[in-house]
Amino acid sequence: MDWGTSNLRAWSIGVDGAIVSAAQSEKGMGKLAQSEFAGALAEIAMELSLPAGPLDVLVCGMAGARQGWLEAPYLEAPTDLRALARGAVRPAVPDSLLRVAILPGICQRQGGENVMRGEETQLLGLASLLPDYSGLVCMPGTHSKWAQLEGTRIENFTTAMTGEMFDLLKTHSVLRHSLNGPLEGPQRQAGFQAGAADGLENPADLLGQLFRVRAGTLLSGREPDWSAGYLSGLLIGTEIAANRNRIGTDPVPLIGSAGLCALYAQVLDMAGASGRPVDATEVVLAGLKAARSQIA
Amino acid sequence: MDWGTSNLRAWSIGVDGAIVSAAQSEKGMGKLAQSEFAGALAEIAMELSLPAGPLDVLVCGMAGARQGWLEAPYLEAPTDLRALARGAVRPAVPDSLLRVAILPGICQRQGGENVMRGEETQLLGLASLLPDYSGLVCMPGTHSKWAQLEGTRIENFTTAMTGEMFDLLKTHSVLRHSLNGPLEGPQRQAGFQAGAADGLENPADLLGQLFRVRAGTLLSGREPDWSAGYLSGLLIGTEIAANRNRIGTDPVPLIGSAGLCALYAQVLDMAGASGRPVDATEVVLAGLKAARSQIA
Repeated sequence: MDWGTSNLRAWSIGVDGAIVSAAQSEKGMGKLAQSEFAGALAEIAMELSLPAGPLDVLVCGMAGARQGWLEAPYLEAPTDLRALARGAVRPAVPDSLLRVAILPGICQRQGGENVMRGEETQLLGLASLLPDYSGLVCMPGTHSKWAQLEGTRIENFTTAMTGEMFDLLKTHSVLRHSLNGPLEGPQRQAGFQAGAADGLENPADLLGQLFRVRAGTLLSGREPDWSAGYLSGLLIGTEIAANRNRIGTDPVPLIGSAGLCALYAQVLDMAGASGRPVDATEVVLAGLKAARSQIA
Repeated sequence: MDWGTSNLRAWSIGVDGAIVSAAQSEKGMGKLAQSEFAGALAEIAMELSLPAGPLDVLVCGMAGARQGWLEAPYLEAPTDLRALARGAVRPAVPDSLLRVAILPGICQRQGGENVMRGEETQLLGLASLLPDYSGLVCMPGTHSKWAQLEGTRIENFTTAMTGEMFDLLKTHSVLRHSLNGPLEGPQRQAGFQAGAADGLENPADLLGQLFRVRAGTLLSGREPDWSAGYLSGLLIGTEIAANRNRIGTDPVPLIGSAGLCALYAQVLDMAGASGRPVDATEVVLAGLKAARSQIA
């Protein structure tokens, strides 16, 4: 199970590693009290039509946070991700044959405090799918992670609040007036390219360049689709510029939704680098399987 | 009158330039339909105890926006601010002896689209208080303005969404969990200095450094006062770093609230520059008087 803040995804996997069934639910960690996790697990288990008898349930993500089901204390980077299984915690599931193990997240104390929960399992999965990869990995999303990976070892990582910033500005800021209408449209791509170019060129001036969205509406009659594209491009361009000097010559693996990874790949190209989208579900499953093989 | 989005301030000024009375109200442009401005003016005129007979009312700020009382089309920078009076528009005020003139804002089309409404009058006031000043002027606030002034001439300007960003992140983002408690406290200043140092050192990584607020709570038990200070310092440090190479050797005039100007002065010092706080009410009054002297 990948049990995040907003929702959860579960797969039942046979002894041969094949997926037998899959289910998802909106009962994310953020919506559950501690006492409600076991019930949410029982519900999703019903949907998965699990066979009778004892079964192992391996969980990654926010369910292991302090406010989640049972805290799985962070491992500290740098660390070998094969240590994840050893850090797992086992919440009690009364009246059930399910044996649950929740994988820990990773923290970083030196070189910039940081935390992740869920992405570490995807990184372990990436390391099993691309066993020889060493370099930077980008995981675009609400809170994008950029991790330096050496095989199964995570050296360090950062978090960029890019996706959350887009939503905040779109919903609550003065820029919402410029994004009040259809956000998909013929000008979205042109706006995206203009914003990405500005972000790549001058990442230090994000606070100043953001206001161009508003000025573009007032002075140039920019439509909401252009403005949404500009804002998205500006934020992603700024994020990639900040990480540009950590990117080597290999394509950067991109783990996230297909649409978002395509945008990041486009901006990486503009920055003279390149991206390599990897299927996010595939890596989380590979990570859970790799951790499962290490658990007693 | 300084008629902004959230509130309005009004002064009655004698022929000798002395302030006779002052009043303020929360009937800002953002809360009024077009038909309600005349009534709001009548209310504040009552509070000012104006003498009988015809009177000139000079207005700066958002009342002249397209969504305001009557649009006063922008002048375009670069321009001499003594041209403001020529751009004033005169809304009708039925059954009144008040003769209203609304001053225009300034827009910029070349070198980064931008707009201001209200600050241009303060800049005209600064030019009359410091007639020989040439250089950058900083106006900290919800949307900070940085303007290049040569006497009464505005060469160019930028807008940084620093104050709004602080409020957005404090209220709506994941960082709100780190700012959930008393924001003033013994650690506020230490947090501010740490954040300002990080922002000055690496302004290109604002999206990444913001998440340190959250990680600091989770890993180091930072209290809300430290976190609020860090967030404030990080944003102001990032803003000042982005403008650092436009700052000359003279102290930068700072026009805004006293508390905010003191924070900006502190960070300017950290950046090897210096600030010179100027009373915001004094400059807006000087600007209105200067514009009044140019109006027919």
